[in-house]
Amino acid sequence: MSTDNAISPMQVRAKIRSGEWQHNTSGVASGFVQGNIVILPKTWADGFLQFCQKNPKPCPIVGMSDQPGDFLLSSVGDDVDIRTDVPSYKVFRDGNFVDEVTDISSLWQDDLVTFVLGCSFSFEEALIADGLEVRNITEGVNVPMYRTNIACKSAGPFSGNTVVSMRPMTPKDAIRAIQICTRFPSVHGAPLHFGNPESIGIKDINNPEFGDAVTIKEGEVPVFWACGVTPQVALEQAKPPLCITHSPGCMLVTDMRNSHLAVL
Amino acid sequence: MSTDNAISPMQVRAKIRSGEWQHNTSGVASGFVQGNIVILPKTWADGFLQFCQKNPKPCPIVGMSDQPGDFLLSSVGDDVDIRTDVPSYKVFRDGNFVDEVTDISSLWQDDLVTFVLGCSFSFEEALIADGLEVRNITEGVNVPMYRTNIACKSAGPFSGNTVVSMRPMTPKDAIRAIQICTRFPSVHGAPLHFGNPESIGIKDINNPEFGDAVTIKEGEVPVFWACGVTPQVALEQAKPPLCITHSPGCMLVTDMRNSHLAVL
Repeated sequence: MSTDNAISPMQVRAKIRSGEWQHNTSGVASGFVQGNIVILPKTWADGFLQFCQKNPKPCPIVGMSDQPGDFLLSSVGDDVDIRTDVPSYKVFRDGNFVDEVTDISSLWQDDLVTFVLGCSFSFEEALIADGLEVRNITEGVNVPMYRTNIACKSAGPFSGNTVVSMRPMTPKDAIRAIQICTRFPSVHGAPLHFGNPESIGIKDINNPEFGDAVTIKEGEVPVFWACGVTPQVALEQAKPPLCITHSPGCMLVTDMRNSHLAVL
Repeated sequence: MSTDNAISPMQVRAKIRSGEWQHNTSGVASGFVQGNIVILPKTWADGFLQFCQKNPKPCPIVGMSDQPGDFLLSSVGDDVDIRTDVPSYKVFRDGNFVDEVTDISSLWQDDLVTFVLGCSFSFEEALIADGLEVRNITEGVNVPMYRTNIACKSAGPFSGNTVVSMRPMTPKDAIRAIQICTRFPSVHGAPLHFGNPESIGIKDINNPEFGDAVTIKEGEVPVFWACGVTPQVALEQAKPPLCITHSPGCMLVTDMRNSHLAVL
């Protein structure tokens, strides 16, 4: 994790664009929204937009291109060029991962639509600001994520079960976390579940399907939030001819403030 | 529980004042705040006020007399006369219960101060309005209440541990209940705890110290709220020469609307 949190979003993007910054964006430009990225051809984007509309907790859209082919996304940041301003991209064809690149200018098509989805960095910042411990940050690992049996509402070719992230907390801290996250519906909002993992289809809490396991201490319960990996799973299943996403942890740093995402 | 919920607060109070209504007020005048009552001599009232100020979750004051000796409480209801408008009162002397009466006019002193404390009826109404089940209401019993090891902050002669009420819920419903109750800090607010009863000093969830046990179904967890019995326990320990409270379930029906207690 970088500790370079005083740098502005525009400065981060400039470094990324120049190739100077190719690693993850965790902890940088604190106070500003970082987004998951999904880029799809227009014919697939409409269904994906509807999927997100139907499943706002795992798939909260905080920005998208005005028109197909637009690679400038001024609605999320003054100078954002989505072809160059993400540190690392993953390219999928027909649902299969084919490449990881730091620039997608050569792949750009005039029918591509970009979605920027809210991510847990925003609410983790709010939890920490309130004095709560976020275990994956304390332990310096990726948050553990699990496939569940909670079905998403399907839209066109997009369907699948919800993926959740997990942060262990005491019940008292979990209650406070529910209050805090309720203020942030566009970055996954309140948790979906706490306690017994099996009741949402998680067989082994110590073996997350994505990310890393974290310590659950005596007296703590696992607390589960809808996770931005959910749309990635839906995309894998839908198998669009082309799909470009950010690489895990390598997000688009926007000019939007986390505090502005709070509904109250 | 009465189903006479279309009657106005003023009509309820008129019936109580005339002696026609001497039973509990659960479910009547829906939409309006019902209050726990504590009446103390001025020399004890100051310390009790400070105790409530320090422990707002179990002891949320929604109204009090303007001056010692005032028996009219127009701030909580147009024609409220606290000597006659509660269906049943309990009288304590030196911390000991001595009498249960339906009128305290003959006991009135010009140094008595009345406190009206928010009660769980208000948030239970909000939970039910949202479609959540409140088990004690479904089962037609008093809510189960337990002594905990959560110490109140002491003030003068007033001290003691927090008493909690318990409502079992699925984790999903508990999360929603936390959100709803957060809006109502003056009627105990968000729960204090969920899950393991022992971690807050409750030895047997099936044997509440006050009220009745309720069914906890498979997949549910007990959810615990700070409870208005807390100040009664503190009063028992402090042993003021005179203390008058409402009898359990026989509350003051005010003209204040539950919805106006919502902070958002």
